[in-house]
Amino acid sequence: MEGVFELGDFELQSGVVLPQARLAYETHGTLNGRRDNAIVYPTAYAGRHFDNAASVGVGRALDPSKYFIVVPDMLGNGLSSSPSTTPPPFDRSRFPLVTIYDNVSAQHRLLTEHFGVARIPLVTGYSMGAQQAFHWAALHAGMVERMAAICGSAKTTPHNWLFLAGLKSALQADAAWADGDYQAAPARGLRAFATVYAGWFASQGFYREGLHLGTFAGQTLRSMGDFLEVTTAVFGSFDANDLLAMLATWQAADVSAHPKFAGDLSRALGAITARSLVMPCATDLYFPPEDSAAAVAKMPAAELRIIPSVWGHLAGSPMLNPVDVRFVDEALAGLLAS
Amino acid sequence: MEGVFELGDFELQSGVVLPQARLAYETHGTLNGRRDNAIVYPTAYAGRHFDNAASVGVGRALDPSKYFIVVPDMLGNGLSSSPSTTPPPFDRSRFPLVTIYDNVSAQHRLLTEHFGVARIPLVTGYSMGAQQAFHWAALHAGMVERMAAICGSAKTTPHNWLFLAGLKSALQADAAWADGDYQAAPARGLRAFATVYAGWFASQGFYREGLHLGTFAGQTLRSMGDFLEVTTAVFGSFDANDLLAMLATWQAADVSAHPKFAGDLSRALGAITARSLVMPCATDLYFPPEDSAAAVAKMPAAELRIIPSVWGHLAGSPMLNPVDVRFVDEALAGLLAS
Repeated sequence: MEGVFELGDFELQSGVVLPQARLAYETHGTLNGRRDNAIVYPTAYAGRHFDNAASVGVGRALDPSKYFIVVPDMLGNGLSSSPSTTPPPFDRSRFPLVTIYDNVSAQHRLLTEHFGVARIPLVTGYSMGAQQAFHWAALHAGMVERMAAICGSAKTTPHNWLFLAGLKSALQADAAWADGDYQAAPARGLRAFATVYAGWFASQGFYREGLHLGTFAGQTLRSMGDFLEVTTAVFGSFDANDLLAMLATWQAADVSAHPKFAGDLSRALGAITARSLVMPCATDLYFPPEDSAAAVAKMPAAELRIIPSVWGHLAGSPMLNPVDVRFVDEALAGLLAS
Repeated sequence: MEGVFELGDFELQSGVVLPQARLAYETHGTLNGRRDNAIVYPTAYAGRHFDNAASVGVGRALDPSKYFIVVPDMLGNGLSSSPSTTPPPFDRSRFPLVTIYDNVSAQHRLLTEHFGVARIPLVTGYSMGAQQAFHWAALHAGMVERMAAICGSAKTTPHNWLFLAGLKSALQADAAWADGDYQAAPARGLRAFATVYAGWFASQGFYREGLHLGTFAGQTLRSMGDFLEVTTAVFGSFDANDLLAMLATWQAADVSAHPKFAGDLSRALGAITARSLVMPCATDLYFPPEDSAAAVAKMPAAELRIIPSVWGHLAGSPMLNPVDVRFVDEALAGLLAS
């Protein structure tokens, strides 16, 4: 069931107040009488709640016959408050920086104020969804019983930041972007954005094995050109300012950037008492397993479980590679059973 | 000693004839009486002969007191025939596609016609220089006694092609590029190009360890912003059409794309009888060691020796990291002594 939670005048970490802010979401299943079966499953970069639905199903780990699965849309994704949906003075590129903590804060209100939930058996997410899961577990340790971070980090690394800076500069190199006040979409910039992105989101081995050809995301692709068309269409389905707003959130992601942790990453990771699974993909080019291993070493109850795949970052996607999807599903099922 | 070899009307692999083509080069040392001490050391992407001089020195593997080291400038680099130096109708973006074989063909004429060399103790190069070394050794097996390919491939892989497509689309997203007929340099496009490039040319670990800060390439850098300024200045010192011409050469690189091999990569690699060292860096993001290992397996007399470094592709640079430079130098010295 889709819904929108009105956040009202929503104060961001920066101190900026976003008026009439809205958090879109979808739920699967039914909240039980004890209100203790709600799973939180935030969206990824350039993701929307309906993308996450691919992970939900009877007999799957995220089973709507057992759990009440709440999928909040990340701010900036075009469904929750975003540059493309916000009136002046915060429209377009004037949309303020939203942090991962701002997202978690909005989601926490949805879960507590709207659904009356006090304990959450699992917070999980893919990519930026994993970043939100880390932040949830660090800030609301007493509430989050389990956490699973799939292909994501607790703090954006310098290399990850740089990859994102490259995407941003490619999009903004297009004069049609017009500092965010474009009339028509900056098509060349979006194409450059998608082309650069494609080099990163799958591994060298993915392309070596020709996995970008044949059937991909339900389409038959015959060439790298076809693959780039699909990739460009995916990112091009988002407003450019929305893409840049989510990118800014990602670049700023830092679980320690909260008064409770005062910039001390070890302290923030140490606060994650939830039983946790941190699942990087072996070949992820921007969330490499080394970074996940370093995080796990500082978490009291975490296990590192590497997804053995050449799909790179895409291995964690809920809808692309069935083998990886099954690997993640089994891991989540095991975590929920523990 | 710097020189320019006049190629005259130079027929490219494509059949296009480039009129009054020129091959710039630098030599170090003296050609001996038997004319058997010439080492060929072509330049890399966005490299010029003076960059390669950093690898040359008495007591080094490339010792000018023993060898006659010839450093030909790759076509497109602004010193040899390039978009920026060629008159109409082949000026700017009308400059034809030049292949690695075209470069080797020009260099072969320099070595044989101009210097009268019949045997070459070593062809070596870094990055696109390594691609040229592979092509030299495959096509002129009877002439090349040893070959060392540092951080480079015999054939550009799909992922490497895609990384380059990203760079190209970032540069061309700038309307100031004007299909190559810009008056002023397309500054935003060049900045995007450099920013995207920086994510690739060093590894995640390089940035994790903060090696982009402190002293880098002789300058003191305090932030990622400083690092990107230096990177932008390096690429910005090239004409945009020249960068794109070299990029096209790189994308098309294929040692098997010659009538002698008819597109059969195994056959082309099998033809490399030179005693060869193939030296990828363990963390190179676009010439990963797996690809080098696959090439070595098909070469009759090749050894894979991985540079153990977090510097990624930059590990092979003749002037950046002293530890990696020494590793390569010792490997080349050993190869030359064999």
